[in-house]
Amino acid sequence: MTHRLHDPDRRTFASDNYAGVHPAVLDAITVANGGHQVAYGADVYTARLREVIREHFGPQTEVFPVFNGTGANVVSLTSVLPRWGAVITAATAHIHTDEAGAPERMTGIKLLTVPTPHGKLTPELVAREAWGWGDEHRAQPLAVSITQTTELGTLYTADEVRAIADFAHARDMAVHMDGARVWNAAAALGVPLREFTTDAGVDILSLGGTKNGLLGAEAVVVLAPQRTTGLAYLRKMTMQLSSKMRFASAQFLALFDDDIGIRTAAHANAMTRRLRSALEAGIADGTLPGLAFSQDSPANAVFATLPTDAADRIREQVRFYDWDRTRGEVRWMTSWDTTEDDVDDFVAIIRKELAR
Amino acid sequence: MTHRLHDPDRRTFASDNYAGVHPAVLDAITVANGGHQVAYGADVYTARLREVIREHFGPQTEVFPVFNGTGANVVSLTSVLPRWGAVITAATAHIHTDEAGAPERMTGIKLLTVPTPHGKLTPELVAREAWGWGDEHRAQPLAVSITQTTELGTLYTADEVRAIADFAHARDMAVHMDGARVWNAAAALGVPLREFTTDAGVDILSLGGTKNGLLGAEAVVVLAPQRTTGLAYLRKMTMQLSSKMRFASAQFLALFDDDIGIRTAAHANAMTRRLRSALEAGIADGTLPGLAFSQDSPANAVFATLPTDAADRIREQVRFYDWDRTRGEVRWMTSWDTTEDDVDDFVAIIRKELAR
Amino acid sequence: MTHRLHDPDRRTFASDNYAGVHPAVLDAITVANGGHQVAYGADVYTARLREVIREHFGPQTEVFPVFNGTGANVVSLTSVLPRWGAVITAATAHIHTDEAGAPERMTGIKLLTVPTPHGKLTPELVAREAWGWGDEHRAQPLAVSITQTTELGTLYTADEVRAIADFAHARDMAVHMDGARVWNAAAALGVPLREFTTDAGVDILSLGGTKNGLLGAEAVVVLAPQRTTGLAYLRKMTMQLSSKMRFASAQFLALFDDDIGIRTAAHANAMTRRLRSALEAGIADGTLPGLAFSQDSPANAVFATLPTDAADRIREQVRFYDWDRTRGEVRWMTSWDTTEDDVDDFVAIIRKELAR
Amino acid sequence: MTHRLHDPDRRTFASDNYAGVHPAVLDAITVANGGHQVAYGADVYTARLREVIREHFGPQTEVFPVFNGTGANVVSLTSVLPRWGAVITAATAHIHTDEAGAPERMTGIKLLTVPTPHGKLTPELVAREAWGWGDEHRAQPLAVSITQTTELGTLYTADEVRAIADFAHARDMAVHMDGARVWNAAAALGVPLREFTTDAGVDILSLGGTKNGLLGAEAVVVLAPQRTTGLAYLRKMTMQLSSKMRFASAQFLALFDDDIGIRTAAHANAMTRRLRSALEAGIADGTLPGLAFSQDSPANAVFATLPTDAADRIREQVRFYDWDRTRGEVRWMTSWDTTEDDVDDFVAIIRKELAR
Repeated sequence: MTHRLHDPDRRTFASDNYAGVHPAVLDAITVANGGHQVAYGADVYTARLREVIREHFGPQTEVFPVFNGTGANVVSLTSVLPRWGAVITAATAHIHTDEAGAPERMTGIKLLTVPTPHGKLTPELVAREAWGWGDEHRAQPLAVSITQTTELGTLYTADEVRAIADFAHARDMAVHMDGARVWNAAAALGVPLREFTTDAGVDILSLGGTKNGLLGAEAVVVLAPQRTTGLAYLRKMTMQLSSKMRFASAQFLALFDDDIGIRTAAHANAMTRRLRSALEAGIADGTLPGLAFSQDSPANAVFATLPTDAADRIREQVRFYDWDRTRGEVRWMTSWDTTEDDVDDFVAIIRKELAR
Repeated sequence: MTHRLHDPDRRTFASDNYAGVHPAVLDAITVANGGHQVAYGADVYTARLREVIREHFGPQTEVFPVFNGTGANVVSLTSVLPRWGAVITAATAHIHTDEAGAPERMTGIKLLTVPTPHGKLTPELVAREAWGWGDEHRAQPLAVSITQTTELGTLYTADEVRAIADFAHARDMAVHMDGARVWNAAAALGVPLREFTTDAGVDILSLGGTKNGLLGAEAVVVLAPQRTTGLAYLRKMTMQLSSKMRFASAQFLALFDDDIGIRTAAHANAMTRRLRSALEAGIADGTLPGLAFSQDSPANAVFATLPTDAADRIREQVRFYDWDRTRGEVRWMTSWDTTEDDVDDFVAIIRKELAR
Repeated sequence: MTHRLHDPDRRTFASDNYAGVHPAVLDAITVANGGHQVAYGADVYTARLREVIREHFGPQTEVFPVFNGTGANVVSLTSVLPRWGAVITAATAHIHTDEAGAPERMTGIKLLTVPTPHGKLTPELVAREAWGWGDEHRAQPLAVSITQTTELGTLYTADEVRAIADFAHARDMAVHMDGARVWNAAAALGVPLREFTTDAGVDILSLGGTKNGLLGAEAVVVLAPQRTTGLAYLRKMTMQLSSKMRFASAQFLALFDDDIGIRTAAHANAMTRRLRSALEAGIADGTLPGLAFSQDSPANAVFATLPTDAADRIREQVRFYDWDRTRGEVRWMTSWDTTEDDVDDFVAIIRKELAR
Repeated sequence: MTHRLHDPDRRTFASDNYAGVHPAVLDAITVANGGHQVAYGADVYTARLREVIREHFGPQTEVFPVFNGTGANVVSLTSVLPRWGAVITAATAHIHTDEAGAPERMTGIKLLTVPTPHGKLTPELVAREAWGWGDEHRAQPLAVSITQTTELGTLYTADEVRAIADFAHARDMAVHMDGARVWNAAAALGVPLREFTTDAGVDILSLGGTKNGLLGAEAVVVLAPQRTTGLAYLRKMTMQLSSKMRFASAQFLALFDDDIGIRTAAHANAMTRRLRSALEAGIADGTLPGLAFSQDSPANAVFATLPTDAADRIREQVRFYDWDRTRGEVRWMTSWDTTEDDVDDFVAIIRKELAR
């Protein structure tokens, strides 16, 4: 049999996708196993997921499980755009910076990016690129994509989402939400997922899962079917159609069961608060010289600046990522499996290395 | 917790991807769980998979786990082709008939298809489209893609693969094998995977997994690195890069462990032999009127013709697919979890319905 | 000034695009020159062309001049297809054999090809690939593309076009006509362009020009606007939008003026008839040993087989193309500028070389 | 025959592509007409153009005539990039703002844009996006594209180009120049084309023609063949291969003949200087209230701000484009056919309308 090759008690502050599978998710996979189920989504677990999604997001919604976040984003955006469409998004958006050009290369989507201070768009920022409809020379801006929580750890309130959606819809643009960490947003805002998605005017959602304890599954959730087209075909032709889909759906069912998804996200957020609070205390009492925060931390990420040599010494002990090395900025993320001890030990290491 | 919604004891003859996850594979996922591992393939299970793949396919090989078979095929073919390349393949090839145009749409691959009697190419059949190099008007035929086992359940011997590879290489064309069912081929031929891949001149392999008991994973195995380029970039930009890759790799490790992959495939093949033998006996003794075979069944599929009304009555009891309804042709597939009782019961149903 | 580098009195039987610009077309360019005109199609010549096109093809039609035939075909087909669409076409179609994969590579169009004896589709032949709607695994057959005259020099009657269009429309498929040589078809059939296009159910037409005496221009003519979408955007994004469009439009205006386009095509056809008749006489009287015809010649091309060595000796004197060298098949084309002497001299050369 | 539908004596300040064909270019087309020439570039005029290009740009260079500027840019950039490549360019670049997403949609090119004050990149500006090589998540920045003269009418000196090229080459990035108005740059700098292209390290050039008096032709000029691949295939598959290429080549030959291309560009530049000088005098003497310049005018464009209502009244008399209406910025362009009277009349109109 396959042998364990790693230390199951060692965790990092690198990314929530370094974490493994939540026990309830693994249970759900086991429960869904055995016997035969129709492939490609005509199974009972996917049927049940459809019901659950409708309970949470509204009766008109549709769900299309896919493999990963880039897949969810590309399928979502393509379904709301004609071939000549463009998407207005923050310059820090994952679709622009971390997807290797997949939107452009796979389905020819043009991105119109806007610099933002905290990873968040506003109607005013969207307006900078929202023009030129009818001009055949300009890629037509027909969608806005926002990320919740953002790549900089910040988040949109339901009202902020609604303001963007109202602005977009008034110009007949669709609204996409990259919700790779949408559970962390819901936990942080203390509201149901629906409040800042369907009810705030989002038309299509990349519903995250993998970063919140799944083995590997994301989903395209169509909130406004009248704005989308061809989802089933698009998912298949972009190579995002799973044959044994029952297992993807069962994973998601586990997240919705007993609010596990919200609770795991809330835990990750709490661990970030614990980390931030301890660091703030250290800054206040002068024991963390050189450390400063570069973003707010409402969810599960801390962005901070510190001397690069200290950062490197800390990293040798606990892994994390540089965000912008030229500015000495790092990102520290917590996840569903981060423990209080993990946080306290990490703070101690930071304290020790900054004090050297 | 997630509740079981299906009957774990009910199986079909529809497809090997209707089956669930082999217990050893689920164990491997559990073993790989816990703690943190670097995302996107820099984990210890993927490192170990690399070693195992090299033991099996040769020291020069590289492995790139991906999500599904269409993804494996598109990444593989793209890596051996310039933007102006075309692929010669059988008209029945999965890449032509069942991938919704993904090769064309995702990376602009032109397919040059050749009709074949049994889903198998030969040098002579390849030659029909292997011409026109240097002519800028013609999509340049720079690769050949064969399927092992084929979509019609047949298979290539190592010598047959080598003949195609020799023909292709003499014209500087690369050779791709769609190995969605490559384990069934190895079991049927009774030779190691290497004998009809690396050693027969295949340059790049879509290594199947999902159809042989995995939860969901396939892999691009580069056998001739000098013929490929940009694999890591191509996998990411085609949205086939898994974040928690340790689990994909652990699944594959389970297949290579104790020859489980070969043994499960051999079992599926044996169940097809059992089915075919019983049906042949029934044809011989006149108890299966109207039934005939339309292809050989060396691996895990039976292709047969029978009256459409009988087929429909059988299907109401045990699910399977029509292959070509206009000709009354059906496909009956066995999988790693098919039991002898499943086969015997199915034969009894067929017998009963054909006798009506 | 630029010096003449070639012999303006030397012609070939290679292709109608070896010929130059008809004097009336060059005049039209000169007339349209001088002063300023709004770029990209908002000029008076393009406005006039729109009127003329509507006179010829119907009041609902729209015209979009483009650069070349491949461009016209790709823009046309893309405008009638969603991203998941496929086109059923003859295996000999230019879009499949001579466009370097442009349909697949530029806009991700899947081609479903059907072998045909004479380059012509029929409803029965279309039916071979017209199936699988709603199956997400299959590229959706949503258009049929026919070529008039075909790549093999044959042509469709209006009734034959209508039969295909009726079949297609009954299945909600669009009908495209590649009319690179549509003028030759009209001249050969002796009917207006409209009779076998708009009136026969064609939805969108690639209207040829370059092969009938233009310097260089083709046009997408939308006959059924309700079946198309985004033409202006598609033309621009496929790099087919001319800035000084007045000159493209003026060229087409010259073809419609005084029936010049029909007359030049009729002349080319007549020269083919002269060639064919002389050769038929020679075959009949035994003076052209080894020569046979492989297709009918209703328009401006002769397809014939003859000994390869004789063909090569003839070609040294007057250029033409092999069609299928393995079968000794050649193509001899006439064009708007072919003279009777050209034909007679060519026949003499053929006679001499076949007699050796 | 085709009738003149426009006033050949009326010109605008809208764009150099509103102008018609220079008489020498029309002569060259006439000279190249008559008789047959091999299609698709194997003609004597294209052969001669190859020689001329080599005389001007260096013996290693290759030339590929194409249809338009967008085509030249897409073919050029694609030829220097793998499928995972990205291009660093100014946010004002034509490839980003005016090509409808053609680079992204046709060949999957990712653009990494940098804001610039005057449309010009510098090594420091390029550096902002020149990072992340080897990271599969980031579209790989493997080329820099600059425009000469820029979309804002400014230009690069040879030294400025060289600084960018040195920076790029040190990081193994290719350098593309969008030379839609490269003749105006050469005329303005008073140096041969080669000095700020080949000799300054440019690897591939989109050589403009249409904006400098051609009927319609641009060319891809490969200056560093070792950095490009597949040009002939790429030109065909992007639908940029002209059949009657002799006429495109003859047009370019006319530009190189007797320095006509430089002289026409110099004339256009001189007309801009005349316009700018008159306006500067008016500003100085207070007769042009509300007018200011927003960019330098070294070549053939004036960018200015003025009250919107005045601009609209002027436009009713002589056509031109708003550049940024929110700021009251307009663009006034001169072309090869602008006369001194045109300029003087235009200044008079501006003066009159600003004085109201």
